[in-house]
Amino acid sequence: MTLLPRFFAEYQHRIDGELRRVVPGSRDRVQEAMAYAVHAPAKRIRPVLTMLTAELCGGSSARAMTAACSIEMIHAASLILDDLPVMDDSPLRRGKPATHVAFGEAMALLAAFGLLSGAFSAIARGYEPPLGSRIAALLSDAVGAEGLIGGQAADLLATDQQITFETLERIHRGKTGALFSVAATAGAMTADAADDSIAALQAFAKNLGLAFQIIDDLLDVEGDPAITGKPVREDAKKTTFVSFSGPEGARQLATELCHTADRALQPFGRRAERLRELSAFVAARMS
Amino acid sequence: MTLLPRFFAEYQHRIDGELRRVVPGSRDRVQEAMAYAVHAPAKRIRPVLTMLTAELCGGSSARAMTAACSIEMIHAASLILDDLPVMDDSPLRRGKPATHVAFGEAMALLAAFGLLSGAFSAIARGYEPPLGSRIAALLSDAVGAEGLIGGQAADLLATDQQITFETLERIHRGKTGALFSVAATAGAMTADAADDSIAALQAFAKNLGLAFQIIDDLLDVEGDPAITGKPVREDAKKTTFVSFSGPEGARQLATELCHTADRALQPFGRRAERLRELSAFVAARMS
Repeated sequence: MTLLPRFFAEYQHRIDGELRRVVPGSRDRVQEAMAYAVHAPAKRIRPVLTMLTAELCGGSSARAMTAACSIEMIHAASLILDDLPVMDDSPLRRGKPATHVAFGEAMALLAAFGLLSGAFSAIARGYEPPLGSRIAALLSDAVGAEGLIGGQAADLLATDQQITFETLERIHRGKTGALFSVAATAGAMTADAADDSIAALQAFAKNLGLAFQIIDDLLDVEGDPAITGKPVREDAKKTTFVSFSGPEGARQLATELCHTADRALQPFGRRAERLRELSAFVAARMS
Repeated sequence: MTLLPRFFAEYQHRIDGELRRVVPGSRDRVQEAMAYAVHAPAKRIRPVLTMLTAELCGGSSARAMTAACSIEMIHAASLILDDLPVMDDSPLRRGKPATHVAFGEAMALLAAFGLLSGAFSAIARGYEPPLGSRIAALLSDAVGAEGLIGGQAADLLATDQQITFETLERIHRGKTGALFSVAATAGAMTADAADDSIAALQAFAKNLGLAFQIIDDLLDVEGDPAITGKPVREDAKKTTFVSFSGPEGARQLATELCHTADRALQPFGRRAERLRELSAFVAARMS
């Protein structure tokens, strides 16, 4: 199993703590389901990315925390939806029963809605106005037609269909790239970063997100369920980068995307070391 | 069929136009589903309420329009969820096949998510910062544990159960009262209303919302499907105000709530005439 960069543990720990505060989960059944989905053991790559870009741009990870957790809440909401019987019908997530298996479909759905709405609530309350509105607008784009929802819809329509490479790329830029991108951007924004820094970090995150997704596809075919937390090959009916280009082609593409991501970090020089470690970790999951 | 107050038509027309702009629905399948859910013929009581409170507090209904449409989008999203097989399993809505019947459950779910996220997007982009964040915070509360989601979860848990009057009231304050309340409040906020005006309008809307729900329960038992747009008695397994207090008790309660709503308008004097007409319309649906 590939190890996360050493600095990760402290960030994860802080994120997990804040998520427990924001999604306490003790009050009623739907809040329990929200907590179940959010507090499952997870790498927290997106929120760590938010904290790292904040620090890289001269801000503080503490100030980026609300945005970081909101992004993880939206990610958790999207996983609840993805796993539903009418979507990917996946009974396992992060090594545990999926939320709809543990709580029933209705509660799972309401929990996903609650997490999405809770993310916007945290942003509206957590940042002074101009910044809060800017982050909220970006977040809703990452959820919308060019983001998670558009990607998932295109993915559903593509099941059992012949699709082009462009469609496949669009699906995954929506399903994974968009939220990675806003994770990096929001962190930089909390640090009042300049537009060119934000653009560079966006390019880094988009490419890293797509690489991450391709490697997920590879692990789905080749991976050990004890590591991936879900059954092997359950995406078999779907066109993935692996079924499209073969495992070797997918591997090359992911490697290339990680290189492109790293190149976007050049303006930051050595200060971007931790982001490079993150992209090296993503690439190393293949091996 | 009870007629809406005469002034309603113009407001509805403007709301329908703006909703067509915000949810054009021509681009792909999930956006078509969003448009299908939002553009079904509807009374638009919540967004009209937003526009009326803005005008009452010296603001303009044009400035309240973004908030009004966001609230209707969230309402439409909640109806998509309510009608799903795992929720109330209702194949008809507003006289047409429910969104999941017309588009499949997966697309319906994504459309609901898209509408919720789109509502927050419109607010973040539509109002200058301090106001946008305040409205977004209120909206997310109306969706959350004390609002739509909490109400729907409590409703699900109450199916086939003996529940208290307090639980029943909590369910409906969440499912209907919370969004009515934010509809009134958001309109007043766009007009920079004073806190005591906002509080009075909130009291009006909460009580009107609960009355509206009770009357819906009554129409479910006694109503003509051609008018209600859904089959009679489909809520029979659920405890409603009608099954709890009997039709006569429910009728009295709704009448009382409308009176309480009207009393909250006293500080506004004759200027609140249109809100009184709205509450008279709600009450008249019973007869």
